[in-house]
Amino acid sequence: MRQATHTMEVATRGQGLYECTAAIAQWVAEQRMVTGLLTLFCRHTSASLLIQENADPTVRVDLLAYFNRIAPEDGPYRHDSEGTDDMPAHLKTALTQVHLSIPLMGGRLALGTWQGIYLFEHRTRPHRRSLALHLLGE
Amino acid sequence: MRQATHTMEVATRGQGLYECTAAIAQWVAEQRMVTGLLTLFCRHTSASLLIQENADPTVRVDLLAYFNRIAPEDGPYRHDSEGTDDMPAHLKTALTQVHLSIPLMGGRLALGTWQGIYLFEHRTRPHRRSLALHLLGE
Amino acid sequence: MRQATHTMEVATRGQGLYECTAAIAQWVAEQRMVTGLLTLFCRHTSASLLIQENADPTVRVDLLAYFNRIAPEDGPYRHDSEGTDDMPAHLKTALTQVHLSIPLMGGRLALGTWQGIYLFEHRTRPHRRSLALHLLGE
Repeated sequence: MRQATHTMEVATRGQGLYECTAAIAQWVAEQRMVTGLLTLFCRHTSASLLIQENADPTVRVDLLAYFNRIAPEDGPYRHDSEGTDDMPAHLKTALTQVHLSIPLMGGRLALGTWQGIYLFEHRTRPHRRSLALHLLGE
Repeated sequence: MRQATHTMEVATRGQGLYECTAAIAQWVAEQRMVTGLLTLFCRHTSASLLIQENADPTVRVDLLAYFNRIAPEDGPYRHDSEGTDDMPAHLKTALTQVHLSIPLMGGRLALGTWQGIYLFEHRTRPHRRSLALHLLGE
Repeated sequence: MRQATHTMEVATRGQGLYECTAAIAQWVAEQRMVTGLLTLFCRHTSASLLIQENADPTVRVDLLAYFNRIAPEDGPYRHDSEGTDDMPAHLKTALTQVHLSIPLMGGRLALGTWQGIYLFEHRTRPHRRSLALHLLGE
């Protein structure tokens, strides 16, 4: 059994779900393992990771609108020094995840047919987001 | 150190928390490892995984009612082609998790006394849900 | 490749975010691995784990207030036998996480600059919370 690690950057242009499935699957394929475990880790507190439907794009529109409703910019926040979108970004990150682990079986990630891996950007301005990837297997 | 993988199906009959702890623990026991890491992965975007209290069943009743309140069927959704329960199902999945990792210590999963592993079904109609299991250890 | 496991106790004094980063990083450093995967698992259903901003303390104040707003003590709960803070504690645990996996790269956890690891206590009274740690690597 062996390990491989990688760092991946995702350029974001405002709030939204940025699909990373193909880039991640390609790096995994290059490691030439058959069975293993992939872990993704988002190194930020105002962006997160989400596995969601990759078919109908209105799902992503609704997801974005929903998180803006439950963590609105005009909430009664004390932390406002980094802009009105910053504290909601922390809340949305807390409500979703900064890490994902996905088994590798038969040489492929065990994602379901409709599952895509997304970086969920919660800030308004463009950012470069850093993901740490860890793969272990044989 | 070695790995074992497995696929488990869970038949659901509408929204609710379906306990899978015993079936998962049995498969883990059959792998005869003492120390390791179990990862569960739910291959869907409208059902998720949750570790919750396995004692008082009213906790599950309250959990179900709560998620129906915060992600209601009559929300202002654009994605409605798959039924009024579909977009709320995606939101509830985003708010919970599709993967869980649990250490194996002393031959047992490191679950607390009151922790059970549940498949959280968010759709109204019956489904067959597929879980990918990955165990690594020795 | 090898594994190490550990159990860590965190004493809590009411609701709040208790930083554990230094204690966890110290244990990891003692295992003298360069590349690996750390998994933390919280063995409770009324306390959880969260990676959040470790800089401005008002972020934690806002996080705590936010979760009290979305999972209030006076909700329409059936499960009330363990106190009015118990069912909200289960809900907050469901909305956050009981496990975290963080890659180890170059001998260090791949945490971002502003990321701290917190035990999120949701109960009012003092508790001793137990975390299971699993590290695998070389």
